[in-house]
Amino acid sequence: MKNLQGHRRYWIFFMRTGIFPGSFDPVTYGHLDIIKRVEHICDRLIVAIAKNSQKKSLFSVEERLELLNFCCKELRDFVEVVSFDGLLVDYCRANSISFIIRGVRNFSDFEYENMNTAVNKKLAPEIETLYIMSGVDTSLISSKIVREVASYHRSVSEFVPPFVSEKILQKFKT
Amino acid sequence: MKNLQGHRRYWIFFMRTGIFPGSFDPVTYGHLDIIKRVEHICDRLIVAIAKNSQKKSLFSVEERLELLNFCCKELRDFVEVVSFDGLLVDYCRANSISFIIRGVRNFSDFEYENMNTAVNKKLAPEIETLYIMSGVDTSLISSKIVREVASYHRSVSEFVPPFVSEKILQKFKT
Amino acid sequence: MKNLQGHRRYWIFFMRTGIFPGSFDPVTYGHLDIIKRVEHICDRLIVAIAKNSQKKSLFSVEERLELLNFCCKELRDFVEVVSFDGLLVDYCRANSISFIIRGVRNFSDFEYENMNTAVNKKLAPEIETLYIMSGVDTSLISSKIVREVASYHRSVSEFVPPFVSEKILQKFKT
Amino acid sequence: MKNLQGHRRYWIFFMRTGIFPGSFDPVTYGHLDIIKRVEHICDRLIVAIAKNSQKKSLFSVEERLELLNFCCKELRDFVEVVSFDGLLVDYCRANSISFIIRGVRNFSDFEYENMNTAVNKKLAPEIETLYIMSGVDTSLISSKIVREVASYHRSVSEFVPPFVSEKILQKFKT
Amino acid sequence: MKNLQGHRRYWIFFMRTGIFPGSFDPVTYGHLDIIKRVEHICDRLIVAIAKNSQKKSLFSVEERLELLNFCCKELRDFVEVVSFDGLLVDYCRANSISFIIRGVRNFSDFEYENMNTAVNKKLAPEIETLYIMSGVDTSLISSKIVREVASYHRSVSEFVPPFVSEKILQKFKT
Amino acid sequence: MKNLQGHRRYWIFFMRTGIFPGSFDPVTYGHLDIIKRVEHICDRLIVAIAKNSQKKSLFSVEERLELLNFCCKELRDFVEVVSFDGLLVDYCRANSISFIIRGVRNFSDFEYENMNTAVNKKLAPEIETLYIMSGVDTSLISSKIVREVASYHRSVSEFVPPFVSEKILQKFKT
Repeated sequence: MKNLQGHRRYWIFFMRTGIFPGSFDPVTYGHLDIIKRVEHICDRLIVAIAKNSQKKSLFSVEERLELLNFCCKELRDFVEVVSFDGLLVDYCRANSISFIIRGVRNFSDFEYENMNTAVNKKLAPEIETLYIMSGVDTSLISSKIVREVASYHRSVSEFVPPFVSEKILQKFKT
Repeated sequence: MKNLQGHRRYWIFFMRTGIFPGSFDPVTYGHLDIIKRVEHICDRLIVAIAKNSQKKSLFSVEERLELLNFCCKELRDFVEVVSFDGLLVDYCRANSISFIIRGVRNFSDFEYENMNTAVNKKLAPEIETLYIMSGVDTSLISSKIVREVASYHRSVSEFVPPFVSEKILQKFKT
Repeated sequence: MKNLQGHRRYWIFFMRTGIFPGSFDPVTYGHLDIIKRVEHICDRLIVAIAKNSQKKSLFSVEERLELLNFCCKELRDFVEVVSFDGLLVDYCRANSISFIIRGVRNFSDFEYENMNTAVNKKLAPEIETLYIMSGVDTSLISSKIVREVASYHRSVSEFVPPFVSEKILQKFKT
Repeated sequence: MKNLQGHRRYWIFFMRTGIFPGSFDPVTYGHLDIIKRVEHICDRLIVAIAKNSQKKSLFSVEERLELLNFCCKELRDFVEVVSFDGLLVDYCRANSISFIIRGVRNFSDFEYENMNTAVNKKLAPEIETLYIMSGVDTSLISSKIVREVASYHRSVSEFVPPFVSEKILQKFKT
Repeated sequence: MKNLQGHRRYWIFFMRTGIFPGSFDPVTYGHLDIIKRVEHICDRLIVAIAKNSQKKSLFSVEERLELLNFCCKELRDFVEVVSFDGLLVDYCRANSISFIIRGVRNFSDFEYENMNTAVNKKLAPEIETLYIMSGVDTSLISSKIVREVASYHRSVSEFVPPFVSEKILQKFKT
Repeated sequence: MKNLQGHRRYWIFFMRTGIFPGSFDPVTYGHLDIIKRVEHICDRLIVAIAKNSQKKSLFSVEERLELLNFCCKELRDFVEVVSFDGLLVDYCRANSISFIIRGVRNFSDFEYENMNTAVNKKLAPEIETLYIMSGVDTSLISSKIVREVASYHRSVSEFVPPFVSEKILQKFKT
């Protein structure tokens, strides 16, 4: 391989593993857009559901794993779905993860992520955090709004894949 | 190699080339911090000086190339310094660059970058833009402020490497 | 009627109905300022109290209707006070409402509203949302701060009309 | 006509004229999206090109009038394109305009508009300013970016109507 | 004493007492940095723990007083630690406090503080509020994040003094 | 003097000198509001016009000194008006100034000031910068807008004192 100046040069390749953490309660087109785009950036992506015992969730961790695995099944060679407990940086270290991917929709997200990133940098300076802008079409979808719209028995098929849409409407039927 | 669930799986590796575009007039510790951190993210980094005939610069493109090459000489296996003309996405396509790296110091940077990213996405949807937060120590350094402080013949050694500091003070001597 | 170029032209007039939704717990001078200013913009304004069973309120929906009706009694030909349940866009469609009016005090309001507006646009593309800046004098009043100040038995007459001030102090007496 | 409570009530209708001021150098899909959406809000819209002798423009005022008239020709019953000199509020008063429409793409726009609105309120308290969020697809287009992309002889057909695209590429040919 | 123009002039000195209110649950290096820097600004500083019966705290008011007194013991001639109930402005008036000091880490803090400041100005126009930027190193530490990290039995010695670090880890042991 | 706990304690008083730097081209009610409020904070205030040879100004430095001196003549015992060249921190050190006062109207101001403050902290760590929010009435006045309104021969008496208003209208007459 030659570099831009035409000199032959050898490059050492590393496998880059990224992690995309979140609540995914439920997974939206916004999340899936980011997962697909990350294929250009790393070789393997861990999509990691943060277990948070204090935050009440609509879907259980098991249900969220199922939904995510279903939605990512065509990206099986690239994506692995897991759940984790404890500090994110500890999970990253234990699993040789090089960087954290965070989708950013707007300024509130940005500022919130900055606080987290600064703390993570103090706890584990070798782990980088990369921000990726949410695509304009999906940029304002949040799991919270999806849950709210569904709670009125309204279709959420504009915001989540059909499989998820069905499951969430079932939740609010009972 | 085994994945998290212990199954053997094969991963395909691609060489990832990133680009870090900017004016670098002159390069600061803020830029260098980002360049070093990007080593965790890609295999090769093009540091690209945007030629902008309309914007008056303190250092010529040739001087900026020299300063950057000097400052990055220990990262020679990873970094290549170039200058380019025209649209950034055209340069990326011509050189098989997978993604653009942008350092973000604050919200103004972030919003400005968002505009650029949205336009780049329209012009070249396959090229991703990744944001990386400037480190807290260097987060508020800008080339503009370095130029201003130096114009009063004050030391800028807190903001730029010694080699750059010397060159910029020379500029304002004459 | 003639247009700017002096040609005779016929304009078709529609009745424009706007809606100004909120919690109004309680109504403040900030809300009333917006209601009055909207007279320049639409022919009829529905001031709509959103029933939200999950959010604990100080005043009941009935009390809030009473307070609002009292405060708007001089605008009776223009304003109608209602309460509603469910999604705002569904209420708008059922009542031929052309647009939603949102008062914006600061950037947090603005960003929060953007999320809502984007979702509403997906659910009901024909309904527009208009933002109106809160007047500078009243721009930083929130119902929450009024409730907090009153909870210390302090006068809130700078923030709400006398009738509301009286009612809220009564609340905290008991 | 009956109101929500079923009582017969008479509404007085006023013709509402709005103004949408800007540089329109050139008009983009972003501007046109707002112009179309404003049909729900007022009876007549003045699209007003601000003559600004200090700001260098790509298209002359006459060319911009032509481009805008061409793009709005299907909205001829609703839209009137003009140019104006001096303070916006003076133009509004002289032409019985009830409110100013401002498209807001992001936070920088928002803050900039706030300054203008506060000053306009001091100079002409009876004129309201309404903000309308740019549609998500067009939200990040600016005339400035269109000019920049076109300056590299790249197609701008994603950002402006074909007629405008042609004219702007001609500009950069010569 | 002479002023800049060299004329003799007499200056009247007042004792300036500032107040630095907060939850301090627990005190962090971020808080302590601000307390130390305020020595340049006033003659006496009241560090005031706001009792808030509605907000659940990790440390009791007594424990927080102890932690703060321990951390400020070298500033004993300048700092006094107290707790207070009720409205901040009432406490200020009762204790002849001239101004309120607020540390601001980012824009969310800034906007939140603006709301408070505007209300305080209405309730007590003679009391000023001064903002001081958090130092870059400590700028993103929050008591909330310290509590969260400690809850995983991880060291928080980067964020709080050793004495506090010990106490918080004890809290989560039991 | 007794402290809050009733113990007798001696306080050492220092004379606090603050500096309020700016262009003041021309001074507005916004500036004057801050100058008056600062009386609660320091014993002496230097109002300092920054000479900036690169920025074209409407009023000369001498004219700005005259306007400021006229507007501050009732605060003569507290305020001193000067002009300065070079870096602000150098001026502060040479004149024993303890802290810099910056008025902040909105987020753009805030972010811009943050950059300056961080650089000043690097160059002169012992000098603090205090932010003070612009009062709500005057919060959106800028010298730039005053100049613009006056350029259309419109009264600016809402934004600046009568003496300044007269001078600025004279400027645009010629």
